[in-house]
Amino acid sequence: MDRGRLEAFSDGVFAVAITLLVIGLAVPEPGHVSLGRQLASHWPSFAAYVVSFLAIGIIWVNHHNLVRNFARVDRAMLFLNLLLLFWVVTIPFATATVAAYLRAGGADASLAAVIYQVVFLGMSLAFGTLLWWSIRHKHLAVPLTGAAARTALIRFTIGNLAYAAAVGVAYLSAPVSLLMSGLIGAYYVYEQTPASRPAPAGGDQVNAEPGDADERGPTDGYPGA
Amino acid sequence: MDRGRLEAFSDGVFAVAITLLVIGLAVPEPGHVSLGRQLASHWPSFAAYVVSFLAIGIIWVNHHNLVRNFARVDRAMLFLNLLLLFWVVTIPFATATVAAYLRAGGADASLAAVIYQVVFLGMSLAFGTLLWWSIRHKHLAVPLTGAAARTALIRFTIGNLAYAAAVGVAYLSAPVSLLMSGLIGAYYVYEQTPASRPAPAGGDQVNAEPGDADERGPTDGYPGA
Amino acid sequence: MDRGRLEAFSDGVFAVAITLLVIGLAVPEPGHVSLGRQLASHWPSFAAYVVSFLAIGIIWVNHHNLVRNFARVDRAMLFLNLLLLFWVVTIPFATATVAAYLRAGGADASLAAVIYQVVFLGMSLAFGTLLWWSIRHKHLAVPLTGAAARTALIRFTIGNLAYAAAVGVAYLSAPVSLLMSGLIGAYYVYEQTPASRPAPAGGDQVNAEPGDADERGPTDGYPGA
Amino acid sequence: MDRGRLEAFSDGVFAVAITLLVIGLAVPEPGHVSLGRQLASHWPSFAAYVVSFLAIGIIWVNHHNLVRNFARVDRAMLFLNLLLLFWVVTIPFATATVAAYLRAGGADASLAAVIYQVVFLGMSLAFGTLLWWSIRHKHLAVPLTGAAARTALIRFTIGNLAYAAAVGVAYLSAPVSLLMSGLIGAYYVYEQTPASRPAPAGGDQVNAEPGDADERGPTDGYPGA
Repeated sequence: MDRGRLEAFSDGVFAVAITLLVIGLAVPEPGHVSLGRQLASHWPSFAAYVVSFLAIGIIWVNHHNLVRNFARVDRAMLFLNLLLLFWVVTIPFATATVAAYLRAGGADASLAAVIYQVVFLGMSLAFGTLLWWSIRHKHLAVPLTGAAARTALIRFTIGNLAYAAAVGVAYLSAPVSLLMSGLIGAYYVYEQTPASRPAPAGGDQVNAEPGDADERGPTDGYPGA
Repeated sequence: MDRGRLEAFSDGVFAVAITLLVIGLAVPEPGHVSLGRQLASHWPSFAAYVVSFLAIGIIWVNHHNLVRNFARVDRAMLFLNLLLLFWVVTIPFATATVAAYLRAGGADASLAAVIYQVVFLGMSLAFGTLLWWSIRHKHLAVPLTGAAARTALIRFTIGNLAYAAAVGVAYLSAPVSLLMSGLIGAYYVYEQTPASRPAPAGGDQVNAEPGDADERGPTDGYPGA
Repeated sequence: MDRGRLEAFSDGVFAVAITLLVIGLAVPEPGHVSLGRQLASHWPSFAAYVVSFLAIGIIWVNHHNLVRNFARVDRAMLFLNLLLLFWVVTIPFATATVAAYLRAGGADASLAAVIYQVVFLGMSLAFGTLLWWSIRHKHLAVPLTGAAARTALIRFTIGNLAYAAAVGVAYLSAPVSLLMSGLIGAYYVYEQTPASRPAPAGGDQVNAEPGDADERGPTDGYPGA
Repeated sequence: MDRGRLEAFSDGVFAVAITLLVIGLAVPEPGHVSLGRQLASHWPSFAAYVVSFLAIGIIWVNHHNLVRNFARVDRAMLFLNLLLLFWVVTIPFATATVAAYLRAGGADASLAAVIYQVVFLGMSLAFGTLLWWSIRHKHLAVPLTGAAARTALIRFTIGNLAYAAAVGVAYLSAPVSLLMSGLIGAYYVYEQTPASRPAPAGGDQVNAEPGDADERGPTDGYPGA
């Protein structure tokens, strides 16, 4: 079964990428300046580390939710997934760049923020295309019907538009654009990928696998509802 | 089944984090000072490497024991697990910082030790919250009953209090606080997470899965009993 | 079952190698030169990153297709697979070298390009040997018959010859040889390893596993046909 | 089942450790010295990379063979396995150190070689202890009987003695000790861990799992017999 190895490889890449973020946390060297002062002056590194860790974590959770509804994985989906991973792997670089330039201000800070947002926009587009492909070619275990599919794609499109807007905002103000990307991240903590959304009360379970009660326990109210 | 991928991703992060510790072992450069002298002057790096390797190893073993008793994994548990991994990934940074400043002494050494202890306290709190959530929402394959659950949570709380105390001690003496964290680590080598604790003689197996005799062989006396 | 762990270890190596590519993307330091100018002057790093990411991704997809047709894995195949991984792990080094020297031109650029091509030639030879061994010792779940085996090996040999030619071309022109390796990569996006090629219309499914319809859906027309 | 996650975590560590070796291959910087000259002067790095890659690869293959015969995994085995991984993770550091000092000669080269050999001796001792524990506590799926167990442990002891001798030789001559470790590696390519050794002709299959013909095909003659 293809899906298992797609997941294993993706999990490996997610795990390495999320851990590589820590390499951006340069360890201060003993010297003239006290440790506390050095750490304080590196606050953008720590803020960027936290934000990007959360971002990769959320992408992983949603990837997980989407992929486990795949009934089939074709060659195109392998390459679309690779494209998604390409952007994920680039996140540590974009994080380190924005951490290095955020305090500089001016054109350099804007450009660093633009790069950061473009990486997330690329990731979001690849993710949406993977979803769209799996719907269009009926590779989902529990197919999304016309209306549900439309809703799902619209939700993804909103994310893409938000990231695209953040690219534009980054030209004007790096910090505001980063705040935006934090908010988009928070949105995707609550918003689940369509494959795992619990059905509305009284409706059919869209993604019920036999015996799979993972998303339907009393905890389902968490976190948004 | 969600649990499999939660384990796969977590194992990947644990594996990368534990291996990244070695990057803190800077290879000496040939030059004026002999190799032996350079290595000797870097002893805190080696000590910190050993302690942190053991620490991540123990966390992995206990994570393993907890997760394999999960019957269900909900979205909150995925994010609580991410929070746990966040602190684990930060361990190589904290290790390198403490290794760089331990010999400096004074306020810098204390601050480095505080950072180290805070990372472990954060990890411990996330771990305890994950356990508490899985008990409270009845996601364990073999539920912990009232008394057993209380015992389990008390044991975890003890660990949290010990790490919190180590944070306080770190302000006074970095080496003493590190000794404490070594002892806490040793405690968790012996102390197992509740899900895998063998039942007391004559009692019921709390965590028996059918056909799973892993923890009940003649070796069970090892290492504490 | 051996195959599972062969896949798990290989996936781990692929995942780490593909993610390590990003370490070659040195983050510019704030200083006299603007961020935009610094990034522009590093364009070979970004180009090499994209090409090598795609290359490792394609190798992974084809590895995946070959290995899932293994019915048995013997000790020789474990070591042939290790040889393949050896070359894969070397790709980040070769990528960084070519990125550093491409703009220098002259003998250094040629040598860097030769190194890059030799790494891919070695990878290709190891891959071909693994395929040849699995055919010769009848370790495929669905054996390749005489004609199909010949076709499969000829296709692999073509790849090897192309990489060998790229080594020669690299002596003359580094950029042309890199263009060649891009084209070879594109060839292998379309060309699948024999184990997963759909049968010609009316023919037998060479690689049909019962219930495995992964490669035969309506998406099979993608991407080449 | 514990074994699966023990394998997954170990595979992750092996995969990261083997890939981190490549970080020791410093990419030459364009400058006064030609690329060819720089690479030539770094030959010990490349030699050490090849040897250590092979070494980790062989350890992985033998680990794989031992672990898949585990019927049970107890807590002690998890920690013995961690001890083995501790030494494996240290290999990239030892490799980089020996590569940096091999050409220096004298006491520094000897010390670097001693460190390298001690790491392999530690790995070998941990591996042997894991084997001994699994035999002694009857955790193997197909138990080793008295004579077979003795033979297996003697073979492992020989490896330990050889590594111990290499430590001694390293004090006298770094290159000779490295040649020794290459030969020990070659020995373990041929010598399999007991759990996977094919039975002598006419004897019982020591490690036959039902339906597992992995090691008994026509390729079994490879590579030693």
